[in-house]
Parts: sequence; C-alpha cells; structure tokens
Amino acid sequence: MTKTDKDARPTPRLPKGLRDIEAAELRQQQDMLAKIRAVYERYGFEPLETPAFEYTDALGKFLPDQDRPNEGVFSFQEEAPETREPSGAEPWLSLRYDLTAPLARYVAQNYQSLPKPFRRYAVGNVWRNEKPGPGRFREFMQFDADTVGAESVAADAEMCMLAADTLEALGIKRGDYVIKVNNRKVLDGVLEAVGLGGESNAAKRLVVLRAIDKFDRLGIEGVRALLGKGRKDESGDFTKGAEIDPPQIKAIEAMFGFRVEFEVGSDGGEKSKLYGEFPKPYPRIDEVTTLYDAMSELGQIGKLIRAAGYDDRIRIDPTVVRGLEYYTGPVFEADLTFEVKDDDGRPVRFGSVGGGGRYDDLVARFTGERVPATGFSIGVSRLQAALAALNKDKSAAAEGPVVVLVMEKDRVADYQKLVQTLRSNDIRAELYLGSSGMKAQMKYADKRGSPCVVIQGSDERAKGEVTLKDLVEGAKAAAAIKDNREWKEARPAQVSVKEADLVAEVRKIVGRHKA
Amino acid sequence: MTKTDKDARPTPRLPKGLRDIEAAELRQQQDMLAKIRAVYERYGFEPLETPAFEYTDALGKFLPDQDRPNEGVFSFQEEAPETREPSGAEPWLSLRYDLTAPLARYVAQNYQSLPKPFRRYAVGNVWRNEKPGPGRFREFMQFDADTVGAESVAADAEMCMLAADTLEALGIKRGDYVIKVNNRKVLDGVLEAVGLGGESNAAKRLVVLRAIDKFDRLGIEGVRALLGKGRKDESGDFTKGAEIDPPQIKAIEAMFGFRVEFEVGSDGGEKSKLYGEFPKPYPRIDEVTTLYDAMSELGQIGKLIRAAGYDDRIRIDPTVVRGLEYYTGPVFEADLTFEVKDDDGRPVRFGSVGGGGRYDDLVARFTGERVPATGFSIGVSRLQAALAALNKDKSAAAEGPVVVLVMEKDRVADYQKLVQTLRSNDIRAELYLGSSGMKAQMKYADKRGSPCVVIQGSDERAKGEVTLKDLVEGAKAAAAIKDNREWKEARPAQVSVKEADLVAEVRKIVGRHKA
Repeated sequence: MTKTDKDARPTPRLPKGLRDIEAAELRQQQDMLAKIRAVYERYGFEPLETPAFEYTDALGKFLPDQDRPNEGVFSFQEEAPETREPSGAEPWLSLRYDLTAPLARYVAQNYQSLPKPFRRYAVGNVWRNEKPGPGRFREFMQFDADTVGAESVAADAEMCMLAADTLEALGIKRGDYVIKVNNRKVLDGVLEAVGLGGESNAAKRLVVLRAIDKFDRLGIEGVRALLGKGRKDESGDFTKGAEIDPPQIKAIEAMFGFRVEFEVGSDGGEKSKLYGEFPKPYPRIDEVTTLYDAMSELGQIGKLIRAAGYDDRIRIDPTVVRGLEYYTGPVFEADLTFEVKDDDGRPVRFGSVGGGGRYDDLVARFTGERVPATGFSIGVSRLQAALAALNKDKSAAAEGPVVVLVMEKDRVADYQKLVQTLRSNDIRAELYLGSSGMKAQMKYADKRGSPCVVIQGSDERAKGEVTLKDLVEGAKAAAAIKDNREWKEARPAQVSVKEADLVAEVRKIVGRHKA
Repeated sequence: MTKTDKDARPTPRLPKGLRDIEAAELRQQQDMLAKIRAVYERYGFEPLETPAFEYTDALGKFLPDQDRPNEGVFSFQEEAPETREPSGAEPWLSLRYDLTAPLARYVAQNYQSLPKPFRRYAVGNVWRNEKPGPGRFREFMQFDADTVGAESVAADAEMCMLAADTLEALGIKRGDYVIKVNNRKVLDGVLEAVGLGGESNAAKRLVVLRAIDKFDRLGIEGVRALLGKGRKDESGDFTKGAEIDPPQIKAIEAMFGFRVEFEVGSDGGEKSKLYGEFPKPYPRIDEVTTLYDAMSELGQIGKLIRAAGYDDRIRIDPTVVRGLEYYTGPVFEADLTFEVKDDDGRPVRFGSVGGGGRYDDLVARFTGERVPATGFSIGVSRLQAALAALNKDKSAAAEGPVVVLVMEKDRVADYQKLVQTLRSNDIRAELYLGSSGMKAQMKYADKRGSPCVVIQGSDERAKGEVTLKDLVEGAKAAAAIKDNREWKEARPAQVSVKEADLVAEVRKIVGRHKA
C-alpha cells in the first residue's frame, strides 16, 4: 500500500459530466430541500426511497428525450452467482434515470397493501448516460411528488398548487414565476387534424412527438428541421427528421399560437374555450373532437384553481410542449419569469425549473391494469442556480468554526479542552490540527471563514486568560489602517478575557457576524 | 406505450440485497441525519458531496473485507465516444464502495486550494457487490467525518469524542455505549514478534490481516481456521487460509488477551502500559519495539481524552481488530453495550455501529506524497436499527394528514378550497382523490394515520358548517362501545363547527395527538 510507483499512479480526475458539490452549495441545498420537503409534507405526501439501481427490464425504456432507447442509462450485468435470476441468467441492472420508473415498480409490487390513492414524495440523484455539456450533468437531483390511483383532475390541479406553494416557500415572489398547464390531448387533436392520427401513423407520430418535445431546447427552427428532413447539431451529429409534408409542419406550428380563455355561459357555468386556427386545407379547431375533450379537462383544472384562489399563479397555456411524449393527459411546467444576467451580461429569463403531468400507463407495464397517476418533479440543481442568482446580493455570513490556535505544542490537551468547552456550549469550534506556526494558523482560520480565533500563549496562561481575535472586524480594521506600526499599537478587534468568560465572550463575537 | 402483451410484462421486483425505505423509517432517518449533521458541524467539519461513481482506477482497490479485489464493486464501461479518455480507451467506472476513496481523489485533485488540514463530512449511499444476506445490503448509507493533512494524534482523539457526542445527541445514554480505541501498530508488533515481519512476508501478512479482520463476524474459531488451512462458510464456499504454524496462530490469539493501563510515573507524567504475554518461544511483549511505539500513541490519545473529560466514554482496548488491514495507525470502534432481544427473544448486545481510524497512504496513491489522514464513519442503517430497538416502547404519533372527504362529487372545488385553507395555515391536509364512497374514504383516512377527517355534506353545507371526526378518539370510543345502535346514537369524537372555525378546531384535534 505504501508503494507509489510513479507510472502506476492514477490521475485524480472526475468522469465528464460529474461534479463535486462543496460546502457553500451543499448548505444552500440542505436548506432548500428542507423547505421543499415541508411543503410536500403539508400536502399529505409521504416519503419513499427506492434503490439507486434496478433490474433494467423493471425500469423500462420510458426515458423522456431519448432518441436511442437502448442508450441513455448506465447499465451493468449482475455477475454474482447468488444474485442470478431463477433461470440462471445474469440479468442487467441500470441506474435509475428518474424517480417515476422506480415508483411504478414499487406500486406494482406493493399494490395490495398501499392506501389508494397512494401519495408519495421522493428526493434523490438520477443518472443519465447522455452527452454532458455546460450545465448538463450526468448525475443530478430530482424532488418529486406523485399521486397514483387518482383519476380525478383534482389530483392534477393540486400538483400545480404544490408547485406554486413550493416556489413561494423558497422565497420566489408571486409574479416572478408562473405554473403553466397544458394537456397532451391538445397535441393529439392537432395530429389528428393534420392526418397523423390512427394506428398506422404510430411510428411517425413518435418521431413527431420527440421533435416537438425539443421546442424548449431548440426553438421553432430546430423543431421545424426535425419535423422535416432532419437537423445537424453544433457537434455535427445529424438527427434524421420525421419527413412530414410542409403543410403538416405549418399546421403543427399553428399550435404555438393557440390560447385558452374562460367564459361564463348564459347558465352562469364556466367554460374554457380554445382560440386559434390551422392553415388550409385543415379543419377548423372547433371541428376536432379531441381538442374539445382537452378543453374540457383544462376547464375543470381551471375551475379548481380559481376556487382555491391560485388563478394569479397558474395559467392554462396550450403551447407548453415539455414531456408530451411521456405524458398522457394534463402537463405542467414551473417557469421562473424574472430576468437574470447571462455570462455575457445580457438579461435572460431563467425559464423552467420543474414540470410534470399525468402518466396513466406506467404501472400497466407490470400488471396489465391501467393505474391513473400524476406527478410533479423539481430539478433541484437548476432551481438552486436560480435561487443563487436571485439572492446573489445578500452577503454571506462568517459561518466557519472558531479556531483555537496551538501556541505551545506540549499543551495540545489544554487547547483541546477549550475546544470541547465551546462545542459543549453549541459553538462551532475546532483545534488547529496542523503542524505550522502562528502565521499559517491565522491564514488557515481566514480560509475557513472563522468569526474568531482563540489564543492562549504563556503570557495569557500566567494570567488565566485567553485572547480572542475577531477576524471579521480585524479584516475591516486592517483595510482601514495603512501603517504597520499603527497596526501593531492598535491591535484592533482583539480582546483578552478571563478563561471562565470564554464561552460568553466568543458568543458575543459569533453573534455579531451571524447572517 | 399502452400495449401490455402479457408475455412481455416484466415482474415488478427488486434485485437481491436492495430495499425500498418507507415513510416511517425515512422520517426517523431524516431526524437522525439532522442530529448527526449538527454534531459534525459543531466540530468544524464542512460538507462535501462526491458523485456516486468514479473512474475505477481512481477508486482503487482499498475495499476493506474484500478477498477478491476485482470483485466487490459494481463496475461498468464508459461507452459514449464523447466521454472517452484522451487515449481513446473506454474506461471503467465503479459505484463508490465507501466515502473515503472518493475523498482521497478529491483531495489529490484539489490539494493546492484546500485549507490544510482539510476537514470534511459526507453522507451518502455506498454500494458493495457482495453476497447479500439478512441485514446485509448491497446499498447502504454512511455518514463520515475525516481530517486530512493532520499528523497529530489530537485529530484521532477528536474523532473519538465526535463519536461519543454523536451517539449522545441521538439519545443514547452515557454507559449504553463505549468508544474503543486501538492501534494498528499493536498488530504490527505481534506479527513481528511471531516472525511475520519484513518485506518477504508481505503477501502472507495480508492474508493474516484479512483473517484477523473477520474476528467480529466469525469469532475466534473462524479466525483460527482462516489463519490455518482455511474455512468453509454456511453456503459451502471455501476460503483458503494463511497456513501459518499452529504456534504462530496461538501467539496471535494471545493478542485478544492484551490490556492497557494508565500509570502516573514518579515524575508526575502519565504513561500507558501494555499487559499480556505470548506463548513460548516468542519474546516478552516489552521486548517488542513496535508495541512500545503503539503504546506511546495510545498513551497520547488517552491523555487528550482525559483532559477533555471523555475518559468515561472512550476506552483504550488493544483487542479491537476492525479494519486493521485498511488502517495504518489508531483505529476506533463505536459499540452499543445495551442489550436488545433478538428474533428468538434472547438478549444480545447490539455491538458496533461505526468505526474509523488513521489511513496515511490513500492520497499518496495519486500524488506519491504521504498525506496523513484520519476519519470516523457511521453505519446509518445499523445505528437506526439500534435506535428503533431503544425507542420501541414509545408510542407513534398520528402524523398523517387531515383528510377532507368528498361527499358530493360536483363540489370538489369547494372541498379543495377547504384543503388549501388548512394547508395555508400550516396544517398537513389533503383532499380524498379517489372515486370511492364514504366508507372507503374513512378506511383510507385510517390507513393514512389521519388525526381527523373533515366532512361537509348537504346538511352541513346548508348550515355553513363542517363536521370534524377525531379518528384517534373515535377508535378508542369504538373499542369501548359494543353495541352498534349505541354507537350510532353517541357518534363519539365527532363535532360540527362553523366553516369559519375550521382551522382553529382542526388545530385543537391535531394538537391533542401530536407526539
């Protein structure tokens, strides 16, 4: 183990698309997760944790945005003889690519014993074997809530309210976000209208759906190319298109001009009505039955949202196309509408930080029985980046530990005792554990973000005292004082106190610099 | 997606050795992790999260308790062209098997920018491709603290105090646990004494170390077999032994009789002294220099522990052999000493819930430079099981949500509004989202552990009221009342209140049943 042949030494490096998360970001994340958890709990969801990997066949191939269904996930084969399948085969395992596929497996496996509907939340990392890029990682965290076994659109409406309450709990002001709601059936109606309905068009429809799903990432030009002959990306990779006719493409594009309005009928009842039109030769939108069905469901959701007083935060928007391949009914998207500056200083909207929808077919994969389900998922890292942009003007607190310096090496036990006294009074503290001198120790305390250091040399010890140096005040004073001699005489932000007063005096300094 | 050909349907199942963690256990875990985190933070450790998998060569083969160094981990090959190594090779990736190997990679990669010593804590799952068994999982959680770059035994002593404070923060009483400290050098001394020292015995020594490391699991007979010809386990698998001589085996066994005592010398200084003896023809223990060095380090740790007032919780014990293959200096083990009943009702000691030690060679794998480090790791699931055994007499609270029943299907929007009113007043609440009748809804609420349900039928609505049914009191009353008619007349634990008083009245009921 102690041999370190230079040629055999590995390079310390991370695989591409993976990253380490360090203290400041992790603390913010902890805080964020606690707030999200509190809202999800308030909505009556129960926590559930499933393993990081599952049998590949149990996860299925329901990966959204995935052109290559056999890729996209990290898979490995079960080799140990004791874990083989009864048939003796060595089954494939895959890291989970989302939290919904494992939920479907869990529900199918435990259906009898679960309360129905079953409401669960889950938080955890997922892994995608995809091309990494800036801000595009192969390991990232999701925070999901799902209701399984509820046919009612009330379950969908609730997901939208959950999304709104969650964003507000995180400090995002009303008006700085919007929850958009659409219905997969709007798209179904459009495809029917342009002649892409029916079983015989199923394969083509899948390619069309995947093209439209990329609207957020590629914009209308990208979608147009993918609906037509195909598209070459920046790296030169070519994706073959759906090759539908130009008039069909035009008609599908018309969908992005659709809008929904609520109207009160002569009977006092509320109705949602769709506005928009297809180019010729396609039918008028009020001639398409599926569009009528879609409007009916969206109308019910709208009614629930208005009754609960959420209509200022949640908006029916028939142009939302995220995840339409995956979902079977209502779909939602949580969008941040405030502007942040991009790397070049240009203002950009932050955009989507979460989404979800109804997927009624996932459990049926196992049981053959259709189990209606709906869910909402937050992209934790993306939302955290948004919060960081929103709060970047707030000053960070000195959250490091109090550092007790080692002035005399043979008195480490006494210093350790001082540290334990601070800790047992709930003050974050540590002993300097390195072997360097005074100057390096002060540098270390600075680097750690310490509010203050505790010093006890032989002088202090003789008097039963300790010296406390306030590092935050000290830094300010150092910036103000130019002269080295003046500095030495003033000894700013430094105080000597009786050892018995250590805890009280340190508490004063720490209290001064709390956030 | 809607096709469900029966033959093609996968069975919903978990791979062996993996498990789902459900709500009650997850809530306890959350609570536990928060308490551990608070102590680790108080000690000045900073959080760090590394990815779930790394390049296999970066993780190395430092898996403790691993006879088959190429197995034991879950590995897969990096296939995507864009993530290949510069050489064009498709490198191997492995799921992390502990949190220390990724820490070594992180430190080697970021050495220049880190404060030195570097103190970090980490919590997360790790994965072992090992034989699963009862209570032996292939995915489990660890909670680690490590100090990298500290030569001083004060860093080791601190780990032991951290362990003690953590167990007490979790509600384990002083006296119900002990932190045991040993030193790898005790074993080195023993091996030297029996003639297994030196470079030429390195290979044999490794087999001996692995055998001794299994003492906790296999007991002295198991170790004796593994030091000799070998051992067949329950499943019939044979592990070849170290095949050392019977007198050598006897001498190694003598180590389990060693003990350490502290003595105050004539100069007032403290010393630790080792007691025990080897069988003939081996030397007296005070003739072995390495044993003297080991005692010197243990003595310093003992002094620090006494000075900080922890000597009633931390004990020097030269018979601790956990992880000796892995560590290079002091080793620690956190043992629970209280008794719990096993599955057959027999009292057993709970035993080890965490451990750690000094490993000075991990970073050198990358850099060639020796970086001293020491750490402590908690086995989260095992500790949680211990806490559950300790607290099993405490009654669980009714922590489920308040459930608003759906009495008239066309009034779902009004019911949803009641739910949102409760939630916005920070009361955990949900709408019944299924499609069943009153009786099934009440059953659902029971299954969810609801403190109460809210009912508003046409009668209540006409009066502007809601009916609240206290399910905890109701269940007690139901147990006391035998007669069905009497039940109907009494309607126990049920109250009708004005809709405006909903929040206040629900709060009363929920407050009654909090833990």
